[in-house]
Amino acid sequence: MVNRQVVLAAHPRGVPTASDFRLVEAAVPTAGPGQMVVRNLYLSLEAAIRSWLDGTANYFEPIALGGAIRGPSIARVETSQLPGFKPGDLIFGLHQWEDYSVSDANTVLLRKLTPNPVLPLSLYAGALGGSGQTAYVGLHSIGGIQSGNTVLVSAAAGATGSMACQIAALEGCRVVGIVGTDEKSEVVRDELGADAAINYRTEPDLAAALTRTCPEGVNVYFDNVGGTTLDAALMAMAQGGRIVGCGMISDYNNAAKPTPLYNLWQVVERQLTLQGFLLYSYLDALPAASAALESWLAAGRLKALENITEGLSGAGGAYSAMMAGTTMGKNLVSVDEAQ
Amino acid sequence: MVNRQVVLAAHPRGVPTASDFRLVEAAVPTAGPGQMVVRNLYLSLEAAIRSWLDGTANYFEPIALGGAIRGPSIARVETSQLPGFKPGDLIFGLHQWEDYSVSDANTVLLRKLTPNPVLPLSLYAGALGGSGQTAYVGLHSIGGIQSGNTVLVSAAAGATGSMACQIAALEGCRVVGIVGTDEKSEVVRDELGADAAINYRTEPDLAAALTRTCPEGVNVYFDNVGGTTLDAALMAMAQGGRIVGCGMISDYNNAAKPTPLYNLWQVVERQLTLQGFLLYSYLDALPAASAALESWLAAGRLKALENITEGLSGAGGAYSAMMAGTTMGKNLVSVDEAQ
Repeated sequence: MVNRQVVLAAHPRGVPTASDFRLVEAAVPTAGPGQMVVRNLYLSLEAAIRSWLDGTANYFEPIALGGAIRGPSIARVETSQLPGFKPGDLIFGLHQWEDYSVSDANTVLLRKLTPNPVLPLSLYAGALGGSGQTAYVGLHSIGGIQSGNTVLVSAAAGATGSMACQIAALEGCRVVGIVGTDEKSEVVRDELGADAAINYRTEPDLAAALTRTCPEGVNVYFDNVGGTTLDAALMAMAQGGRIVGCGMISDYNNAAKPTPLYNLWQVVERQLTLQGFLLYSYLDALPAASAALESWLAAGRLKALENITEGLSGAGGAYSAMMAGTTMGKNLVSVDEAQ
Repeated sequence: MVNRQVVLAAHPRGVPTASDFRLVEAAVPTAGPGQMVVRNLYLSLEAAIRSWLDGTANYFEPIALGGAIRGPSIARVETSQLPGFKPGDLIFGLHQWEDYSVSDANTVLLRKLTPNPVLPLSLYAGALGGSGQTAYVGLHSIGGIQSGNTVLVSAAAGATGSMACQIAALEGCRVVGIVGTDEKSEVVRDELGADAAINYRTEPDLAAALTRTCPEGVNVYFDNVGGTTLDAALMAMAQGGRIVGCGMISDYNNAAKPTPLYNLWQVVERQLTLQGFLLYSYLDALPAASAALESWLAAGRLKALENITEGLSGAGGAYSAMMAGTTMGKNLVSVDEAQ
């Protein structure tokens, strides 16, 4: 039995490419006291991983060249010396891109899953995981959305954006999505309940397009990207509007040189509130969010947009495609059985 | 009897100069039905006036070349055909830089003053007017200051900043002021209750200076200036910190080319709230603010920093000096008796 691992072959320059990653074989780990060995089933591809690939310190240790890529996964417990966890249990936690990981009580994001049998397990990494929860909590606890609001969502076909569009529509809002391809525009309009979609790559003046599409102004902007998109949105906000800052992915591929913003003076002129948030600060809001999401999903009112790559060997390529912005929905890798 | 007027001689390029203004003589106005003629006593010099001098539309009509400069003043009613106002009443309102103005029920900011006899009348344009109220409401209603907070104030020796420093100190906060001269540093520390002052012009790295001076992070940043100062402050905020956006004066002299900001991603990373506000949206908060300010001033616990220029002919020069950042405290022009 081997433990295939995806390791960092090179520090990416800008958007990662498949050759920045390499598949190697390592020994299958064993569990010491307080530990368990888990088999990874789904890797959850996350923009935050990008910041660990540059070799510079961040919230987490950077990943060294040759080191296994760190990332959250849905996994099944194989052996356990950790009280409360037994073989066969399904868990979520920050593991590595490999067949088998060691997990313990200190594993970041660790939680035991009790999957709803009518829903696919993969949803617990996306629609019922961080993406869905971030969209729900961001729109409600930070954005304070009300029925009738105009809600703007950037990266609207992405993991979190696709949930934000649908949740806002379910709550009676008028939804406008910003995307980067015409194909995404169609999905956002036809499948995610948005009233309009704007392809920022084909609009010569994004601020003008937003103002035209939202003539009464944007009440809540759910911002997944920051940068020039945020700058344009500032010019289309309604008086007293709220901007939910849940990601600045536009700079993740180039953290050393952030995009300049020019329109911050609108914050005063339009009396805006721009509030950033990280999900872990809103743990109290998670039970209600999860209950609402699960009930909508089970009733078929909410659609989980997933892009699942089959096989561990494709993880690097899948991640690169996601960071290049060519994918839609939640990106996952379904880990195959080794040889 | 003549009505001296200060009119716009030229659209300023960047910071205004005295030659952009000219003193002329006009007819003394008369009051029609519903109007009153008022004698201006103190002109309140305000950064907002700058945006009316470029000849381009704004919230208000731009001031045409040769037109009288519009600005708030404390004035005394001379003749009145407006019910509720009689000769001798003292009022505040948006008038013009001249000896005599016409005022009516539609005058912007119009309110009747009932001055506290132990306090100078001029305070009603500053410490007891918009400057003091903006500082009080911004710190409390938007910033939510708590005793023990570290509060950072930019333009700390200015009309609003000098009030914000003192109010935060009176509320038990640790106060750090950002200023542009060493003389202002001294005043902020020695007279306005700040624990520290930073001269941004002599600091090679303002963000580093702020981080050094506020090692536990800034809880509330009262931002009067925006631009590069805001950008630096973003790097010194505590997790969950709040930024009160009450002015972006750094761009008032050059509205067409705002200063780029690079550090907005900190809003997400540090979970900050940046909220802009305009005083007129918080009218409910004004009575409590005015009562607190008046009581502190009467008790000598709050100092009104004033820079009063004597004589209408000096208004253009006084305004230019203020917009160049060389003055301290609230800038007023005391209108002299014509000839």
